[in-house]
Amino acid sequence: MNEYPSKVLQEAVEAISSLPGVGSRSALRLALHLLRQPAGNVHHFATAIDDLATKVHYCKECNMIADEDICGICSDNRRDHGIICVVESVRDVMSIETTGQYHGVYHVLGGIISPINGIGPGDLSIDRLVERLQKAEVPTEVILALSGDVEGETTSFYLYRKISGLAARISTLARGLGFGDDLEYADSLTLGRSIVNRQAFKPQ
Amino acid sequence: MNEYPSKVLQEAVEAISSLPGVGSRSALRLALHLLRQPAGNVHHFATAIDDLATKVHYCKECNMIADEDICGICSDNRRDHGIICVVESVRDVMSIETTGQYHGVYHVLGGIISPINGIGPGDLSIDRLVERLQKAEVPTEVILALSGDVEGETTSFYLYRKISGLAARISTLARGLGFGDDLEYADSLTLGRSIVNRQAFKPQ
Repeated sequence: MNEYPSKVLQEAVEAISSLPGVGSRSALRLALHLLRQPAGNVHHFATAIDDLATKVHYCKECNMIADEDICGICSDNRRDHGIICVVESVRDVMSIETTGQYHGVYHVLGGIISPINGIGPGDLSIDRLVERLQKAEVPTEVILALSGDVEGETTSFYLYRKISGLAARISTLARGLGFGDDLEYADSLTLGRSIVNRQAFKPQ
Repeated sequence: MNEYPSKVLQEAVEAISSLPGVGSRSALRLALHLLRQPAGNVHHFATAIDDLATKVHYCKECNMIADEDICGICSDNRRDHGIICVVESVRDVMSIETTGQYHGVYHVLGGIISPINGIGPGDLSIDRLVERLQKAEVPTEVILALSGDVEGETTSFYLYRKISGLAARISTLARGLGFGDDLEYADSLTLGRSIVNRQAFKPQ
């Protein structure tokens, strides 16, 4: 006998174990769980996944995922369209939105310049950012909100050269110790930068 | 804005996080992973899941999942149809098959008697086991291969009373120390039983 008693089960296990961080034993456990559910639930699950491929749109303005041609943020008039926060991914937009501290709009690059992974500037939505700045009606601030690693810094530097002159101000995220961080456990690069870039003390 | 930028994404995340052991953060990570895949891959994934609801059959003989009306084990003439191993679930059949040590057939109960979870004998395929034994053409050995916990023992005892007289022999799995187990770390119940049920030493 084959390792799997059913070809259908085998294909489901193989599909599930193609997900990142899901091994074949977990995949089998999840497939057997689904098998025990009512057919309607399983069908609903499968449809929700399939819709990811067929029903998701990308915002024509900022490249964020959306249900319409323009995302909820770009179509919101209460947001400040004079500030564009440039991020790597959809996930980053969601993280920043969760803080509730940002009221501008976004531009999702869809990746980061990474020669090792074969991703160059042409693979990212950089030209669209340039166009967006060129046709902007108000002087625009661009926040480069990319990761602090080498690839993020490289991409920030590339973008800086590409858009300087097109934006009224180009800024980046503050780097330093996290709130609640213990000095003892901070890495020396972060600690060093947070001394160099020290801020005025504001009693609250 | 809603926590999710897209209703489609939200539904996918909710579906994925309904799986056991998958939290909402993991579900989001997996949904965003799927979103980055080519549409064909996502569709293939969804179809493999949907097939679990629509294409899986249960063997009319032993209640195991199968692609046909009779499973690969029950339709295999090289297997000994005079020995029926009674297990709780599909998973147990797969585990025993992996050992390569068993050449009889199975009977999948589809659960275990558990008053706490509201599962009584009527919810399991016990009547079908009785029928199967009644119409068996050869004297049959039944192996009760259920868990060693209270629910497993209760179910074994119930089955024993139900089928005694219908089977030529009723046996259960050997209990004792696992191979490679250290005496020091064995629980005292297991250790006690493996002294009481000690076996003749067979040099190999």
